[in-house]
Amino acid sequence: MLHILFLFLLAISSTHAAVQDFCVGDLTAPEGPAGYSCKKPAKVTVADFVFSGLGVAGNTSNIIKAAVTPAFAAQFPGVNGLGISIARLDMAVGGVIPLHTHPGGSEILVVAQGSITAGFISSANAVYYKTLKKGDIMVFPQGLLHFQLNAGGIPAIAFVSFSSPSPGLQITAFALFGNNLPSALVEKTTFLDDAQVKKLKAVLGGTG
Amino acid sequence: MLHILFLFLLAISSTHAAVQDFCVGDLTAPEGPAGYSCKKPAKVTVADFVFSGLGVAGNTSNIIKAAVTPAFAAQFPGVNGLGISIARLDMAVGGVIPLHTHPGGSEILVVAQGSITAGFISSANAVYYKTLKKGDIMVFPQGLLHFQLNAGGIPAIAFVSFSSPSPGLQITAFALFGNNLPSALVEKTTFLDDAQVKKLKAVLGGTG
Amino acid sequence: MLHILFLFLLAISSTHAAVQDFCVGDLTAPEGPAGYSCKKPAKVTVADFVFSGLGVAGNTSNIIKAAVTPAFAAQFPGVNGLGISIARLDMAVGGVIPLHTHPGGSEILVVAQGSITAGFISSANAVYYKTLKKGDIMVFPQGLLHFQLNAGGIPAIAFVSFSSPSPGLQITAFALFGNNLPSALVEKTTFLDDAQVKKLKAVLGGTG
Amino acid sequence: MLHILFLFLLAISSTHAAVQDFCVGDLTAPEGPAGYSCKKPAKVTVADFVFSGLGVAGNTSNIIKAAVTPAFAAQFPGVNGLGISIARLDMAVGGVIPLHTHPGGSEILVVAQGSITAGFISSANAVYYKTLKKGDIMVFPQGLLHFQLNAGGIPAIAFVSFSSPSPGLQITAFALFGNNLPSALVEKTTFLDDAQVKKLKAVLGGTG
Amino acid sequence: MLHILFLFLLAISSTHAAVQDFCVGDLTAPEGPAGYSCKKPAKVTVADFVFSGLGVAGNTSNIIKAAVTPAFAAQFPGVNGLGISIARLDMAVGGVIPLHTHPGGSEILVVAQGSITAGFISSANAVYYKTLKKGDIMVFPQGLLHFQLNAGGIPAIAFVSFSSPSPGLQITAFALFGNNLPSALVEKTTFLDDAQVKKLKAVLGGTG
Amino acid sequence: MLHILFLFLLAISSTHAAVQDFCVGDLTAPEGPAGYSCKKPAKVTVADFVFSGLGVAGNTSNIIKAAVTPAFAAQFPGVNGLGISIARLDMAVGGVIPLHTHPGGSEILVVAQGSITAGFISSANAVYYKTLKKGDIMVFPQGLLHFQLNAGGIPAIAFVSFSSPSPGLQITAFALFGNNLPSALVEKTTFLDDAQVKKLKAVLGGTG
Repeated sequence: MLHILFLFLLAISSTHAAVQDFCVGDLTAPEGPAGYSCKKPAKVTVADFVFSGLGVAGNTSNIIKAAVTPAFAAQFPGVNGLGISIARLDMAVGGVIPLHTHPGGSEILVVAQGSITAGFISSANAVYYKTLKKGDIMVFPQGLLHFQLNAGGIPAIAFVSFSSPSPGLQITAFALFGNNLPSALVEKTTFLDDAQVKKLKAVLGGTG
Repeated sequence: MLHILFLFLLAISSTHAAVQDFCVGDLTAPEGPAGYSCKKPAKVTVADFVFSGLGVAGNTSNIIKAAVTPAFAAQFPGVNGLGISIARLDMAVGGVIPLHTHPGGSEILVVAQGSITAGFISSANAVYYKTLKKGDIMVFPQGLLHFQLNAGGIPAIAFVSFSSPSPGLQITAFALFGNNLPSALVEKTTFLDDAQVKKLKAVLGGTG
Repeated sequence: MLHILFLFLLAISSTHAAVQDFCVGDLTAPEGPAGYSCKKPAKVTVADFVFSGLGVAGNTSNIIKAAVTPAFAAQFPGVNGLGISIARLDMAVGGVIPLHTHPGGSEILVVAQGSITAGFISSANAVYYKTLKKGDIMVFPQGLLHFQLNAGGIPAIAFVSFSSPSPGLQITAFALFGNNLPSALVEKTTFLDDAQVKKLKAVLGGTG
Repeated sequence: MLHILFLFLLAISSTHAAVQDFCVGDLTAPEGPAGYSCKKPAKVTVADFVFSGLGVAGNTSNIIKAAVTPAFAAQFPGVNGLGISIARLDMAVGGVIPLHTHPGGSEILVVAQGSITAGFISSANAVYYKTLKKGDIMVFPQGLLHFQLNAGGIPAIAFVSFSSPSPGLQITAFALFGNNLPSALVEKTTFLDDAQVKKLKAVLGGTG
Repeated sequence: MLHILFLFLLAISSTHAAVQDFCVGDLTAPEGPAGYSCKKPAKVTVADFVFSGLGVAGNTSNIIKAAVTPAFAAQFPGVNGLGISIARLDMAVGGVIPLHTHPGGSEILVVAQGSITAGFISSANAVYYKTLKKGDIMVFPQGLLHFQLNAGGIPAIAFVSFSSPSPGLQITAFALFGNNLPSALVEKTTFLDDAQVKKLKAVLGGTG
Repeated sequence: MLHILFLFLLAISSTHAAVQDFCVGDLTAPEGPAGYSCKKPAKVTVADFVFSGLGVAGNTSNIIKAAVTPAFAAQFPGVNGLGISIARLDMAVGGVIPLHTHPGGSEILVVAQGSITAGFISSANAVYYKTLKKGDIMVFPQGLLHFQLNAGGIPAIAFVSFSSPSPGLQITAFALFGNNLPSALVEKTTFLDDAQVKKLKAVLGGTG
């Protein structure tokens, strides 16, 4: 009789498990507006839900003395469809994460090491910023310009979580100066001087 | 050192760009509840985000002296997944867009030329209608019956935006009289007379 | 002239019908976070929107003297993408639907026959339960532990609707004792005694 | 030491219980786009989650020989914010629920007694209808015109669930003929004859 | 008997009309994450759904030779909760709408007069821009930097619709130089020179 | 002329800033299904977006040798309406976070110190668990039973983020044994023995 229960329960649960519980992304299959197609449930293992990439410090030997290591759906397909993702920030002494937005999600930062000055600018053009110490958290509402800087004398580490598995990332300076958007258009739409635009285009790899 | 920044930034942004920024519809690939599958980002060009079809007047040489030209996801795949779409209304003198609903979205109309009488009926059976002049806007809440008529002596043009890339369109008269729903069912479910139903079935191409 | 109207209306409606109206699930095509891919509209018939499986009593010859017959998207693909599904509960005299959650949706139960004691437990650990008679309804908020028991002397039947086409179902006893989760982990995370865990593992088919 | 656990757990759960678990509607407080304000959790009892109004047959002594008894958020505030609601349909012999839409939700019908002919019309103007027997279910996608008729020789009863706590209800005949929408506007936007419109305006209480 | 129908139908529809159909914003009542509280339905008139503010040209006698006239929920409370809003753009000859984002929604632009060069930059740092003529539309995915310029010899007018009743607006130059964000922070997070920052702070009213 | 720009931009942005950017919760005002009412924007400061409560170790001197310190909307109103929240887990040596669910959100855990064994059980009754080291992350899909244990010889710390500002928390043992749910109901719905239920009711403060 117990076997009957067993089979009964199994039958209920197994037929529809993939859709509602999780949808580990299959990066080789079609994507839609809601995310990647789902890996077949039978092939899903615990390895799909665990990611070790954030345990390693990012390489901060660069001009910003900082690194962002994302665990978005493209890097960590286990979050596909689950409305959440995470990334690691490393900032050497003097490091900075330049002004940027995430078009698709809000962010919470928690300081794991060191001290960080972080802030954002609202649509009403109010500025909110503060220096955070280890264990402090700060929230950045969706789509607003924000930044982070190492505010201390030791390397800083933070974890930033997002309300989307693919929040996106648009770094303002890179968007302005790191592509083929003509200098004339940049200048006309930002009030920046021609010399400034051309200087930064040269620095950040932009053309035009 | 600048190259390091360049590569660093490029690496962050490029791997996950397709999902979160946009999902231009690939009409030949599988569709899901959230819309069409996404065209590969590498094949997307500015032409995917621009549509010229609404610059041309619709053909109003028909019984309603009006035309609807949609730019929904099926016609303009650039809006796939973005929560918005648009259409153009042309109404010759005496033209009318018959009573209809959009099952999947709310609508805002802006009058681009001429004068339009527009209205909707609420669930509480209240009627809201007004004659609009050029530049006026009116909002029609999701799923409610509404209509538009040319209220002036010149052709009227309007642009109507929707809160969905695929809002749908169900014209009441066409749903009642333009298909194979048996007359007896139409009559029983609308209180209309048999003669009226059969007359309009003949006019609008319905059978049964 | 009427043909012109006919063609005009047909053109508007037919090109974008599949996406916004419905998306009958094609269980053989890719799934995404929002559900199954859509069956081609031309192949959809009324049979896709009707399901007779809930007209038959479930087999209650088992240890719980009860049966759950789901019409979720996996069994009834017509609900795919529509934000709703339903199931039938049969409880013989003395039957019980054990404590369980639906991770993905809220539930409304309506008693179709007999008398049922039903309840749920909130996050604040408040208990809400009541004995319901034929025609009574009760709502169970998303994700909370709840249960149903036959409270009368005749078989009880209920229909339970969900705010999702794939609400999921996790029966607590089965999750604790019906799989390969090691007994030591069960005990440590539930405060249950080793003897109790091992006894129920044996009953419910669990190992470890 | 056990008391410490008790207090610890209580503290975690009790402070934030109201928002995430449920939001029983307070019909006297402000409403917003997402529904009614929440009743204070301390005042919520099991009676807020149970509703007996669907256990009583609706009065079918009317022209349509039918009745709809809703348990939407306005009648059953326990569903507020939970994405689901339900109603009871009673159809005497010859009874009919006239053509209507629910602007805000999809519907599943389950036949509890008798036999019902039900159907809907898609945006592509396809008609889907079938005669259902006891226990059969049918799904009606959001916002589309649909109807139900008693197809048997005994009173029919059905329960209809919705993917929204406030799905709305717009009965076409009532929207056309039961209010102060001027006859001229009705005629121009539906192709109906003046005599037909005036006849039904008289029947259904409309003016103008 | 007809009166019975009338009362029956009225009863069904009237009790729950406000929530599901619309929620005209009451700007004096509490706001929540989903929008403003709803104006009492009995006080709602057609004037709540119509707005004439976009029929008037914006004042372009300013440094950008352009004006944005929004009809968001704060200006046009009829769109509250409906997932859509609209604005008018006026650009005199040489006018420009500077680089900006809408944190909360995607946008469709339709050119109503003249010629406009418009474009956006993706997260992958691709640039998409084109010169549009009257009647052309372009879509700008949510949260991405975009701009519009008058590309012709006459004043240009456009209507821009959004997938949110409150999409927000963050003009980059204003966010960088028009508030009290310290120059040192601007420079460190944008790579801009101190002289450039101070020059534009002076122009755009910023301090610090 | 520059002042004109300044005023122009200010006017655009300031009138609608509160709704779309953020909605800091006012815990004393009405709550709705989407969250708390918004604090007036003029009273919002950076302190509303920063929270220091997670910088302090929770008190683990209790039976589970562990503590959960939440920064949900009720504790950290800055996240209200933003689709995200966070909490800190402290586990002394031998500590455990008992089996629990979050009815309203998915979770990502990142190990900040020590080693943690974490796992979850799917609807299909598959078990996924692994021992994680510092910097590892694991995702737990919405609504599923999951647990965490200190797997090392030093205190473990983790930060857990959620896809909701109010994800809820239902600890299974507490829901079963820590309230007034009658023992007979617990036993009937879980298969547990009477002695076991009564023993744990005594331990966890339950009655009945």
